[in-house]
Amino acid sequence: MTRKAIYPGTFDPITFGHLDVIERAAALYDKLFIAVAKSEDKNPLFTVAERIEMISEAVKKYDNVEVESFEGLVVDYAVRKQVKVVIRGLRMISDFEYEFQMALTNRKLNSDIETVFMMPKDSYSYLSSRLIKEVSRLGADISKFVPSHVERKLRGKKDE
Amino acid sequence: MTRKAIYPGTFDPITFGHLDVIERAAALYDKLFIAVAKSEDKNPLFTVAERIEMISEAVKKYDNVEVESFEGLVVDYAVRKQVKVVIRGLRMISDFEYEFQMALTNRKLNSDIETVFMMPKDSYSYLSSRLIKEVSRLGADISKFVPSHVERKLRGKKDE
Amino acid sequence: MTRKAIYPGTFDPITFGHLDVIERAAALYDKLFIAVAKSEDKNPLFTVAERIEMISEAVKKYDNVEVESFEGLVVDYAVRKQVKVVIRGLRMISDFEYEFQMALTNRKLNSDIETVFMMPKDSYSYLSSRLIKEVSRLGADISKFVPSHVERKLRGKKDE
Amino acid sequence: MTRKAIYPGTFDPITFGHLDVIERAAALYDKLFIAVAKSEDKNPLFTVAERIEMISEAVKKYDNVEVESFEGLVVDYAVRKQVKVVIRGLRMISDFEYEFQMALTNRKLNSDIETVFMMPKDSYSYLSSRLIKEVSRLGADISKFVPSHVERKLRGKKDE
Amino acid sequence: MTRKAIYPGTFDPITFGHLDVIERAAALYDKLFIAVAKSEDKNPLFTVAERIEMISEAVKKYDNVEVESFEGLVVDYAVRKQVKVVIRGLRMISDFEYEFQMALTNRKLNSDIETVFMMPKDSYSYLSSRLIKEVSRLGADISKFVPSHVERKLRGKKDE
Amino acid sequence: MTRKAIYPGTFDPITFGHLDVIERAAALYDKLFIAVAKSEDKNPLFTVAERIEMISEAVKKYDNVEVESFEGLVVDYAVRKQVKVVIRGLRMISDFEYEFQMALTNRKLNSDIETVFMMPKDSYSYLSSRLIKEVSRLGADISKFVPSHVERKLRGKKDE
Repeated sequence: MTRKAIYPGTFDPITFGHLDVIERAAALYDKLFIAVAKSEDKNPLFTVAERIEMISEAVKKYDNVEVESFEGLVVDYAVRKQVKVVIRGLRMISDFEYEFQMALTNRKLNSDIETVFMMPKDSYSYLSSRLIKEVSRLGADISKFVPSHVERKLRGKKDE
Repeated sequence: MTRKAIYPGTFDPITFGHLDVIERAAALYDKLFIAVAKSEDKNPLFTVAERIEMISEAVKKYDNVEVESFEGLVVDYAVRKQVKVVIRGLRMISDFEYEFQMALTNRKLNSDIETVFMMPKDSYSYLSSRLIKEVSRLGADISKFVPSHVERKLRGKKDE
Repeated sequence: MTRKAIYPGTFDPITFGHLDVIERAAALYDKLFIAVAKSEDKNPLFTVAERIEMISEAVKKYDNVEVESFEGLVVDYAVRKQVKVVIRGLRMISDFEYEFQMALTNRKLNSDIETVFMMPKDSYSYLSSRLIKEVSRLGADISKFVPSHVERKLRGKKDE
Repeated sequence: MTRKAIYPGTFDPITFGHLDVIERAAALYDKLFIAVAKSEDKNPLFTVAERIEMISEAVKKYDNVEVESFEGLVVDYAVRKQVKVVIRGLRMISDFEYEFQMALTNRKLNSDIETVFMMPKDSYSYLSSRLIKEVSRLGADISKFVPSHVERKLRGKKDE
Repeated sequence: MTRKAIYPGTFDPITFGHLDVIERAAALYDKLFIAVAKSEDKNPLFTVAERIEMISEAVKKYDNVEVESFEGLVVDYAVRKQVKVVIRGLRMISDFEYEFQMALTNRKLNSDIETVFMMPKDSYSYLSSRLIKEVSRLGADISKFVPSHVERKLRGKKDE
Repeated sequence: MTRKAIYPGTFDPITFGHLDVIERAAALYDKLFIAVAKSEDKNPLFTVAERIEMISEAVKKYDNVEVESFEGLVVDYAVRKQVKVVIRGLRMISDFEYEFQMALTNRKLNSDIETVFMMPKDSYSYLSSRLIKEVSRLGADISKFVPSHVERKLRGKKDE
């Protein structure tokens, strides 16, 4: 039996924190789908195509990781992909409660889908895409937070 | 002496979590006013009139519950209604700190008004109007979260 | 109808934080029972008789407050007293989660009993009987934390 | 490849909350080891043998679940069993921080072992073995918290 | 050696909570720079000039406090001012996690700059500029939250 | 003027987390007193003399750090040493609320003494002396958590 999992998110843009979760999840499952939510209401900085391209570049070393976009509910996407496990990274600070609320809501929507939480490396536990975009806009060197190809993309956005 | 209480909120829209708090509060007080805040700055999905109508339908079985809208401060509304108790539901996750901040601010504004917190049923502790609107927009079946007449209204909004 | 409430606790010893909750609850209910748990497993510093005496002295100005001890479950005590409301103070720090856990357990044990939470004055939000006993033992002037007759009793304990 | 996981704990005694996590984990892994820590320093109410017996009775319906005791570090036990995944239930209240602290410590001790967190059913999120023992001792009907054979065992302890 | 510190923020507008932190920090350092972030993306109610004017009026009694605006990263501003300490007030509720996330990000950006946290007076622990603006707009008397000259400015904004 | 600070604690035993806070504080103050609380009620594993010896060995590279024991209240010790600043490390997890409670109590006991909080390195944010003693007793290699001379001492205790 092939063990598959979905790691959904907005990834606007992908950070070393996300990549650490991906590395851990890829080791535990035969197949990992990174599912990029369109999230138009969050007014993302990068288009879905740009986000998929940045993630694909960052995960090309993993044979069992695939990057896709999805619309609608995560649980419906999981059903379409015949996957029962949704992975979420749980940072030590700041998103515990939101994650629980979302996971319990998803369980009510489809009790077949199980959310499992994984912990990123402690030194990435404070990383957030939002904060990275903010300090990048203010001129920060963000090479400690994102891969270099993402850094270049972020710098490009700033100049637009 | 008639014991009266106010249960204020935006109720955009009312959920089973709110209704659970209402049922508990209606059992403890002779008169319960559900006070719908206009909250124009929150850009609500439903008009005040729509929200009042949905709540009224949901609480018509309680003799001692009345639904009204209010503008301005909750504590000023309480004074106008000659009520000293403000009820707030305290979900296990996500609103503890905001609720405390608001309650302490209200106490500073009028020390005669007391905020008392009640706990909704554990299985409703994760419900939020915001999340329900989000998953409804994405196509979710929300019949486990809101009464059927609210569900129909939400579906109607989506088609607009 | 007489509105009655129970305010249970160990009160080892009573602090200005407890007294603030009592003042607020006494204003909202016709009758308030302060229910002193024997809590032998917590190895209290004061006997039940001493704790009742200290509380009685501190609340003698309220006509509608009565002090008693109880054994067993709070919900069973509430049934014996024909009271449906259990009051708990909710400090801004340190006891939120334990209080919720206890309130939900009590609700499972007897769904007729409702726990309502009240907030003590902000400047008492950090007071704890445990901490007061600790700093008193180390020689602190605790007159800002407890009534003077409790302070004397605590000093007496230290000299034993 | 056989996917195996360990669910370690003291289980003093096992509750419906633990059993809910076990059911979810047993569905995700080919083999689940329930690893009962001796935890002598926690002064458990039940012996390891009693705890294993109560768990075994409760999980006999699952073909892929095995109950064992272990001494020493969880990560060392995992290595001996050739398992890379440690399951922990994450209740909405009360143990988030301790769980994270333990998981990060375990990762430092052996980075090959991954802790994954699963959420028990919302209505079990407040259950704790400690609280159940406490209310049982005070005479509570605990049939909503533990299986009937555990309830009988707990009653037996009280009469000792 | 002159001990200098920076207290950065948006201060939209300055509250008694901020002023309490300023008083404490001014007592611990030879020189304190209050650094007003432009924060255009937060869409502040007051212009930088207005915010600086209100703060200057409120801190004129301190000889060692200077008010300035800054653009860009706090850590870069600190380098320009040759200051190694950034002060942040830590309220008992609501900003702990965000503050930690920001402080750790700043440390990654420049490890020479140290963030130290100070606690405002307990009775100011719930104050937030956002909430004060909200209740002021709804007609509240905010004289307990901000200095009188700030109160007048806020009332002026409402009439615009 | 000499800027002095106290870093009080039980240090049973000192960890890399404590040492990281000491390094940061020693850089900000002219003189840093590490004040070892006797804490007999906590039943420490090491005697005060052993704890002082272990700390002294670990901090000998800092010219401005002195190690002492103290009895009684921290604020009284601070007065005796003519120090106005008490340093506390604030780990991302697990001690925020206790630290605030203690700091506010100390402020009530002596408003001249200011508690300032510093953040240890993120990768030490989960370290606790209690957990280290526990895993050491269970046979863990604790060289990532404490200096080697502390590790030897801990191993020695285990063999007693």
